[in-house]
Amino acid sequence: MPSIPTVHFGLAGLGNVGMGVYKNLLRNGDLVASRSGVRLDVRKIAIRNRDKHVAAGVPAALLTTDWRDLVNDPDISVIVELIGGTTDAYDLVKSAILARKAVVTGNKALLAERGIELVALAERENVPLYFEAAVAGGIPIIKAVREALIGNNIEAIYGIINGTTNFILTRMSDDGLSYDDALAEAQQLGFAEADPYLDVSGWDAGHKAIILAWLSYGQWVSPDQVHVEGISHLTRSDLAFARSMGYAVKLLAVVRLDASKNIEVRVQPSLVPRSSILASINGVMNAVAVYGDIVGETLFYGSGAGQDATSSSVISDLVDAADNLINEAGTNNGFVPHGQYGASLPVADTISSYYLRLHVDDRPGVIAAIASLLADHSIGILSMNQPEVDASANGADLMLMLHKASYGSMLAARNAIAALDCVRQPPVLLRVEKFPARHA
Amino acid sequence: MPSIPTVHFGLAGLGNVGMGVYKNLLRNGDLVASRSGVRLDVRKIAIRNRDKHVAAGVPAALLTTDWRDLVNDPDISVIVELIGGTTDAYDLVKSAILARKAVVTGNKALLAERGIELVALAERENVPLYFEAAVAGGIPIIKAVREALIGNNIEAIYGIINGTTNFILTRMSDDGLSYDDALAEAQQLGFAEADPYLDVSGWDAGHKAIILAWLSYGQWVSPDQVHVEGISHLTRSDLAFARSMGYAVKLLAVVRLDASKNIEVRVQPSLVPRSSILASINGVMNAVAVYGDIVGETLFYGSGAGQDATSSSVISDLVDAADNLINEAGTNNGFVPHGQYGASLPVADTISSYYLRLHVDDRPGVIAAIASLLADHSIGILSMNQPEVDASANGADLMLMLHKASYGSMLAARNAIAALDCVRQPPVLLRVEKFPARHA
Repeated sequence: MPSIPTVHFGLAGLGNVGMGVYKNLLRNGDLVASRSGVRLDVRKIAIRNRDKHVAAGVPAALLTTDWRDLVNDPDISVIVELIGGTTDAYDLVKSAILARKAVVTGNKALLAERGIELVALAERENVPLYFEAAVAGGIPIIKAVREALIGNNIEAIYGIINGTTNFILTRMSDDGLSYDDALAEAQQLGFAEADPYLDVSGWDAGHKAIILAWLSYGQWVSPDQVHVEGISHLTRSDLAFARSMGYAVKLLAVVRLDASKNIEVRVQPSLVPRSSILASINGVMNAVAVYGDIVGETLFYGSGAGQDATSSSVISDLVDAADNLINEAGTNNGFVPHGQYGASLPVADTISSYYLRLHVDDRPGVIAAIASLLADHSIGILSMNQPEVDASANGADLMLMLHKASYGSMLAARNAIAALDCVRQPPVLLRVEKFPARHA
Repeated sequence: MPSIPTVHFGLAGLGNVGMGVYKNLLRNGDLVASRSGVRLDVRKIAIRNRDKHVAAGVPAALLTTDWRDLVNDPDISVIVELIGGTTDAYDLVKSAILARKAVVTGNKALLAERGIELVALAERENVPLYFEAAVAGGIPIIKAVREALIGNNIEAIYGIINGTTNFILTRMSDDGLSYDDALAEAQQLGFAEADPYLDVSGWDAGHKAIILAWLSYGQWVSPDQVHVEGISHLTRSDLAFARSMGYAVKLLAVVRLDASKNIEVRVQPSLVPRSSILASINGVMNAVAVYGDIVGETLFYGSGAGQDATSSSVISDLVDAADNLINEAGTNNGFVPHGQYGASLPVADTISSYYLRLHVDDRPGVIAAIASLLADHSIGILSMNQPEVDASANGADLMLMLHKASYGSMLAARNAIAALDCVRQPPVLLRVEKFPARHA
């Protein structure tokens, strides 16, 4: 790789998300450098307990117990704030801005409560502020609203933006658990904290909704003007009845303008039509539907929390911050991958399950002949159906679901079957695609 | 508004998408300027038929029939290529790059067939190239893969990225139309062209898949290495049988790496589990599921075609191009909305339908009392149910679905109902949210 510039950053906080950023940059740092044209280097990490992190394998030379060391280091040009809360985090972000260092934060409470002041300060000092990780974890909803939909008046945003409550509601609805049992399970699995107040009260979602409203309408709505309700009063029978009426119950954040251009920001458990995509968002997953006056309906889906997913957003912000620094020096135009023709997997070697439709003679021996040819090509049969046998018809349809095989073997088997006398029309072969397991 | 810089661009092509860009920048240009800090000004428009566009109200002074006038205009710093095809469009993009003008294009065929050469040229000349509109219309999938997921190894992409074929398959599956009838309807509605080859053959999706593979793996896969199949051989019975087995049939673009790091790029009609979000993407809508090694599963949904949706992506690219130009002069850090506290709609004035659960005495007169209180507050009853009447229970649950009303009226009614002697527990009130109608 040719020599590329390095941007040094300071990482404040090595909790769940902070450790994700540290770990995943070790893992994918070369990939990020090759794509962005800039190397991200963690120069110092501010933590509370040095011994714990040294024991966990973090180099002692990187660690400091005073976040001021990050702000005061002249080599550090970006500060990543992942310590949480609104006291130390506020002091840190303010100091970083005043020191003219770009700031990346995942702190939704800080922005919702003091964003009005910090953003004004950042504008005054001409310091960029990034906060993709503050809303909906790994989903790039900030970039979507702020950059991709920049040409749109935002008509409305409907979001499932708290994974803990969505997990609880999913378990209550799909598996009949009580609220208390579902919460206990969420705590056991690490999806809810010992004190679940911020999640189940709706306030975690409320903070995120305030940020989305600001991005959409350029105005901060004060937390005391936001109506927030939690989910602890819901019972299984609410969820069961909603389902029987064609609805799912979701803790829904709503951001929109009314006809008089007043901003509506609220978080309430709400019934949503089961035919909507939002109704199908289950477990700890998040989704945000954004309606723009030009683009129409859009929706962004992914993991709303978790070490890895959230660190993906922090890394994206770090690259944007670094690009911005480098761009000012005029040497980089962003990620353009290298353009050579690559090794392509021949389609014959791709693997999946299959659906095969045949039109065959309706007589004994036909199925045996077909099954035998499939066995010759080592292709297992999952099921075989003749859904519409019409006595007056000239032959019968036969539908087969087949086990995994290479497309090459499958084509060979299909061609052999097509050549049988009892097969009257060209077979129809479709692939069956299973996706990676959805997160709980 | 304070004085902000203006970036002049040349627009080549005033067909469906080109007209969308022109029209929507007239409409939302001030919004874009206030968000981005830069004004986008269309300086010249290259078209074929001057009279047609003058008649349609486009100022004659903007029009030229020679795209070279755009490239040769020293005031124009960005060229938007929306003329389509791979001949004139190729000459135009190449000339623009050589003239050191940023390029925005929506031309998937051009990139898939000649991207390897044009991107190399753009790198050599240090000219940025933007192409959000080339894949999935209004869905910001390019920005998502290129920027938001930059820290991720892309494990796989599964996309429904052709609206025409998805409309046809939806009508065949949901409404039992034949392929020919569904295609004819798509043509009538303007979702398919008179010659539908590029869509129904799968090649439109194939071109987009090549671009996604390049973004994901940094390598161009030659079109002759991409396996593409269309949908014209599918019958209603294929779709009905798939449904009975728990699947939907979608024209699926697949981009992924196999275990040996070979790139798999293919477009084939495929069965996808009905429990997956992709199975629920209907009509002309598009969706792209992206799996990253850090972020896990993500999905991006929206209008995959159409004048307005696609122009939303072109405008986003134009802002990025303009920001990049301005940034080199060091005066702008991107969209940061203004930070003042805004007018917030009181939650009492927000409107929706409602679900109300009461625990009441199981005796005559109770329902009449409740219905009367609701009527006093002008709240209509949609349905009323007692799902689980247990003779041994102390009272009965009563579930009501209620018509639209302000939250204030609803709370007043709820409180009046709660005060009734026959109501034994605090009522549970939930909102019912209906979303804007989904595009056909």
